Amino acid sequence: MPASNAPSGRRQPYARGLDLKNGRIDLSHGAGGRAMAQLIDDLFAVAFDNPYLAQQHDAACIPMDVGQGGGGRVVVSTDGFVISPLFFPGGDIGSLSVHGTVNDVAMAGARPLYLTVGMIIEEGFPLADLKAIVQSMAAAASSAGVSIVAGDTKVVERGKGDGIFITTTGIGTVPDGVDISANRACPGDAILISGSIGDHGVAVLSKREGLAFETDILSDSAALHGLVADMVAAVPDIHVLRDPTRGGLAAVLNEIAMASGVGITIREKAIPMATAVRGACELLGLDPLYVANEGKLVAFCKGEDADRLLTVMRAHPLGRDAAIIGECSDDPHRFVQMETAFGGNRIIDWLAGEQLPRIC
Amino acid sequence: MPASNAPSGRRQPYARGLDLKNGRIDLSHGAGGRAMAQLIDDLFAVAFDNPYLAQQHDAACIPMDVGQGGGGRVVVSTDGFVISPLFFPGGDIGSLSVHGTVNDVAMAGARPLYLTVGMIIEEGFPLADLKAIVQSMAAAASSAGVSIVAGDTKVVERGKGDGIFITTTGIGTVPDGVDISANRACPGDAILISGSIGDHGVAVLSKREGLAFETDILSDSAALHGLVADMVAAVPDIHVLRDPTRGGLAAVLNEIAMASGVGITIREKAIPMATAVRGACELLGLDPLYVANEGKLVAFCKGEDADRLLTVMRAHPLGRDAAIIGECSDDPHRFVQMETAFGGNRIIDWLAGEQLPRIC
Repeated sequence: MPASNAPSGRRQPYARGLDLKNGRIDLSHGAGGRAMAQLIDDLFAVAFDNPYLAQQHDAACIPMDVGQGGGGRVVVSTDGFVISPLFFPGGDIGSLSVHGTVNDVAMAGARPLYLTVGMIIEEGFPLADLKAIVQSMAAAASSAGVSIVAGDTKVVERGKGDGIFITTTGIGTVPDGVDISANRACPGDAILISGSIGDHGVAVLSKREGLAFETDILSDSAALHGLVADMVAAVPDIHVLRDPTRGGLAAVLNEIAMASGVGITIREKAIPMATAVRGACELLGLDPLYVANEGKLVAFCKGEDADRLLTVMRAHPLGRDAAIIGECSDDPHRFVQMETAFGGNRIIDWLAGEQLPRIC
Repeated sequence: MPASNAPSGRRQPYARGLDLKNGRIDLSHGAGGRAMAQLIDDLFAVAFDNPYLAQQHDAACIPMDVGQGGGGRVVVSTDGFVISPLFFPGGDIGSLSVHGTVNDVAMAGARPLYLTVGMIIEEGFPLADLKAIVQSMAAAASSAGVSIVAGDTKVVERGKGDGIFITTTGIGTVPDGVDISANRACPGDAILISGSIGDHGVAVLSKREGLAFETDILSDSAALHGLVADMVAAVPDIHVLRDPTRGGLAAVLNEIAMASGVGITIREKAIPMATAVRGACELLGLDPLYVANEGKLVAFCKGEDADRLLTVMRAHPLGRDAAIIGECSDDPHRFVQMETAFGGNRIIDWLAGEQLPRIC
């Protein structure tokens, strides 16, 4: 019974240090008692250090300046990360879980400010791996200028999870006058992409058990809010922004066509792609249009704004390979089509089944 | 290849309806393509229907009135739910995931407004169970007056999860002048609890495989924001509020003693407990002080405010069994002690190991 553990004398919060080198997560780390408090104090609080987290509430109280009058707009987004493997060329589940949610907030034209983190960890998970992931999250958050203000840790028995799953929620604010939304694409809009497609998916696949192949491709995992801020400053009337993650460019274009009621035509030759990604996709029988990206965005704007937007994108390190890849048309069928490199025409449908499970 | 699925004629978004009766989750439901969109449209969007979710962004744009000047305070909290079994007497993982996070926000004295939901579902999970859980979430959110404004669904392979895990994030606003925090307990403060302890943990345990026993005990899972609003209106200077979930009353009292630098003494006789809960705990060798609750709160206030606060709590349906259970003292050791029913004195330490895994 716990009561038999009565301390003698002045209470020392933790009898022993957390063994971050050789220790493993056990069920007590999710039980709400001393072991969990120690994990939070010795690992999370140190890595994510900020005044909001230091309040040590279950809930964080955060300032939110939404403009004069207090009636401004807040943007919130949530995303779960179940990627396998947890560590991959160019990133890990920690940095990915920050970038992915920062990007979802940024795609509304918002400035990301705060993140919350929910971890579901499998019993037996190495504390050294957890430390690496947490430090990677902290570095990604710091570099993106967001504070991790609240969190939660649950532990499930061995065999009931898969290492670690991370769910992040992002909160940000949108400047007045910015209205970026998947349903705002219009016939005549130009479609731009910020860089090459397929890097993330191929990098992750290259480390999958049973699939390992040689490649220098790194995941493109990155926080895009800085690029978005530059873009919005140059062209405040951007109609749509979207990051082509799960389901790739094909899924995102279909979502936008459906939401906006337009047709879309893209040109295969115009879509940036690394030679190694093209090769890996051919080898594995994958269509790169459906492969996930984690540091790219697609933008829709008026045709007349396209060149200006492209110039701004190319001036940013995360947009230097940006390209205009197509345009919207008036099409009641809402088809997404591609002019192929060989001069043909192909319908780009949504993915019906699944191509790459657990890519993010 | 997906491209071979080109539709003919005007696009129908989904070829077949979702089989919510006999269907099962497969990996395609998390792949970002057509199956995932169908799951979102046919199940989540219908159940959680609200104008923010209907924006169909990855991020929801939500109004947030933080008072004149826009410098007000927003409260955010996140919680993962991995409870086993998923359905238990008095609730399920869906209602629990709403109540738990609504309560974390409410414990800052805030009014909960919005929730986001991240689901991690195991391949093979019955769609009928998912529908029941989603409808339970929707009902709990509606009854708590919160909108579910953004969500995410991931699917992991069979054997890499355990049915469904749900992470919710809650956002609310705090009225000016309210400052409720775990570090505000003072010597002389009275400690109140809103009702009986141990109901949730015992109700869940009664359905565990290998542990099943007869009991009429229901989980106390409930949203406490209404009770909190009444309490704050009557006694704006409440010092601390906390819901004793994982780790039970013992963990919460120790956290508060540690954060505020006070000693705490509670009286065993004063703590409300159902006879059946007491019996089940004796049978299972559990200490009810460490058993999770999901619809109770602990409040700390000045001694002179205690009777007024108690009266208001008892006037609310979720506080009708409220009681004053102890007080804070000046104690550099920050001990939590209990005067036992037999006249003895016992140190109530934190739980060192774990008593009840996956109770929430």
